[in-house]
Amino acid sequence: MSVQPALLPGDLAAASFSRFRSAAPLVHCLTNEVVQSFTANVLLALGASPAMVVEAEEAAQFAALADALLINIGTLHADRARAMLAAAETANGAGRPWVLDPVAVGGLHYRTRFARELLALRPAAIRGNASEIMALAGLDARGRGVDSADDSAAALPAARALAQCSGAVVAVTGAVDFVTDGERDYAVCGGDPLMTRVVGTGCALSAVVAAFAVQPDRLAAVATACRVMSLAGERACAAVRGPGSFVPAFLDALYALEVTDLQENVCETY
Amino acid sequence: MSVQPALLPGDLAAASFSRFRSAAPLVHCLTNEVVQSFTANVLLALGASPAMVVEAEEAAQFAALADALLINIGTLHADRARAMLAAAETANGAGRPWVLDPVAVGGLHYRTRFARELLALRPAAIRGNASEIMALAGLDARGRGVDSADDSAAALPAARALAQCSGAVVAVTGAVDFVTDGERDYAVCGGDPLMTRVVGTGCALSAVVAAFAVQPDRLAAVATACRVMSLAGERACAAVRGPGSFVPAFLDALYALEVTDLQENVCETY
Amino acid sequence: MSVQPALLPGDLAAASFSRFRSAAPLVHCLTNEVVQSFTANVLLALGASPAMVVEAEEAAQFAALADALLINIGTLHADRARAMLAAAETANGAGRPWVLDPVAVGGLHYRTRFARELLALRPAAIRGNASEIMALAGLDARGRGVDSADDSAAALPAARALAQCSGAVVAVTGAVDFVTDGERDYAVCGGDPLMTRVVGTGCALSAVVAAFAVQPDRLAAVATACRVMSLAGERACAAVRGPGSFVPAFLDALYALEVTDLQENVCETY
Repeated sequence: MSVQPALLPGDLAAASFSRFRSAAPLVHCLTNEVVQSFTANVLLALGASPAMVVEAEEAAQFAALADALLINIGTLHADRARAMLAAAETANGAGRPWVLDPVAVGGLHYRTRFARELLALRPAAIRGNASEIMALAGLDARGRGVDSADDSAAALPAARALAQCSGAVVAVTGAVDFVTDGERDYAVCGGDPLMTRVVGTGCALSAVVAAFAVQPDRLAAVATACRVMSLAGERACAAVRGPGSFVPAFLDALYALEVTDLQENVCETY
Repeated sequence: MSVQPALLPGDLAAASFSRFRSAAPLVHCLTNEVVQSFTANVLLALGASPAMVVEAEEAAQFAALADALLINIGTLHADRARAMLAAAETANGAGRPWVLDPVAVGGLHYRTRFARELLALRPAAIRGNASEIMALAGLDARGRGVDSADDSAAALPAARALAQCSGAVVAVTGAVDFVTDGERDYAVCGGDPLMTRVVGTGCALSAVVAAFAVQPDRLAAVATACRVMSLAGERACAAVRGPGSFVPAFLDALYALEVTDLQENVCETY
Repeated sequence: MSVQPALLPGDLAAASFSRFRSAAPLVHCLTNEVVQSFTANVLLALGASPAMVVEAEEAAQFAALADALLINIGTLHADRARAMLAAAETANGAGRPWVLDPVAVGGLHYRTRFARELLALRPAAIRGNASEIMALAGLDARGRGVDSADDSAAALPAARALAQCSGAVVAVTGAVDFVTDGERDYAVCGGDPLMTRVVGTGCALSAVVAAFAVQPDRLAAVATACRVMSLAGERACAAVRGPGSFVPAFLDALYALEVTDLQENVCETY
């Protein structure tokens, strides 16, 4: 296993984005209250279809009809937790991939217990920041400053271990994103620190990860989801004055993204 | 009953919009989690007042204090369903119009049963896309591609039947919107396909329909609500680069709309 | 007690904003469904950190970990009410300030009872419009037109009485904001009527009040929170065409705000 993961190749990213555009996946989002509108708009701008179906009975039914499922525990409460478990079980039964975004897992007991329960249902992919991935992997991330933008690399060993024990593709995102299946890794660069001043960029990325997780080469596809967001983010940031004007510019950039953009726009180094 | 409904006359639309501006209705919105902020901002931009009061006890109390009520079942769950029934009953008792937006009715059993329960409480108006209106009218819309923008015309017979059996004014919206009371119809054109790439444009329209449903000529008023949104939408789309910049431009266009704009801007054909 | 409160001095505002920027407080927001995203973006734009943790068990745990707590009852329901009480009690036990935003208190029985229950738990600060502050103080505001922008002055005696009986700093906001601890008052001007056409500006202010309430001179700090929002609001309004373009411009203005801006930008009169 290399210490320095390879950058996601542009041809893989372009092929994956092309497949995404053709498939226009329907993504069932069980996500937090704060980011639902932004998440839906990100998926729509990219050409996917979002649907938020939240009562346990119909969440279970809908998880088999949608192409993929997102479970984000940001504003977890008991009723939504029941819907999440029901939907994950249906998705598994129907062969639909589902993605876990373990928001703020670690210090908070209620959601940490629940995230472990979800983990046992074997998500297809997991997307979190360094502290979340380390906590979910069973490491104590507190006091180590892992929320800072530079520390996704420090969480890469935890991400690999989590991928190996869970079977999921794991994306640990930050200034550089690392995506691993436990055997192979990709690095994805791009983005902009301004994106951390806008609520929901990480949560919306997890929804995009779900939309890409339907593809057969899941590792490359999840890395492409990260690259789509980082590329649109850096393009948007180049043209705006702050986090307010970022949101419309980012959605416009996602909408304007072409397959050839993924081919051409690869960082040289990181 | 004409096969080709007449376009909404500009003078009717202008008179209805003028009445709306004078009344500045207070609209009680029991709507889905994804679109609450956008819905509130659409009503505020137009000069109406939104209020989201959701616990069953006070939703029932508030439905008699507000001018109109919106019930949108997009993220239906059991607690909200109880509040919706309580509010609809109070609104009926107090003579306040209420509007049903039957989001995604059809394939999902839980909400389809609930929408039929609501329908029995006799909404003043119903606003949905072609597949929703066909499903609510008891027709099987699946497999017919009725989500596509061109098919609102295909759902017009279902809309008329639904209006006749329910007593509601029914708006089936798409590339062209059709509004019917079961006897007379209006067609409303305008808008832009970009609006389908932004979450909540249809849901917000339903809130605007509620704000207009207080007027005595309900058929013309509901059609005017559709025209207000399609006109602001086409103006916004003319000036933007994508779905992100659409949202602020659309709200600004709603805010800037004048009564005379409704008079003058009528499509020639459709 | 002066009849005409003094304007918040620029040097106090600058010092308070400087302290805020250094502290970058983590604010636990138990707020309404409509404004969660905007509230989070306002705090992020200013450099604070928002977190929405809503299930009673972990809301209680998190209230001791965050620097401050906001309780906004806009879309109150029974489950959230339990979380609010649990969080307020933990915050009190841990010595963390919490802020009450009594949205629409007065006519609605359910939330009015609950707001009085919260009031007994002694919030550090309360932020509301004139009718809400008058209702919470036990005065009947109905039929007096206190929702209009000019009437915050009419509610100042109620705000002073509420501050004296509750021990909270009370901010009654409108065209001019008044902030009082029951003994001393500050007036804060600025802002723009356009801000009343955007959902959540008042609710987001309450979150900013929570972020400032951690400071030792709470009266000046709460007034500074009001001034930060009114200054960014008037700057944004100077550059936009309506409520849609206001939102991105406002967040950009909050992001761009400098300590020296607070020093220099004080109204001459009101």
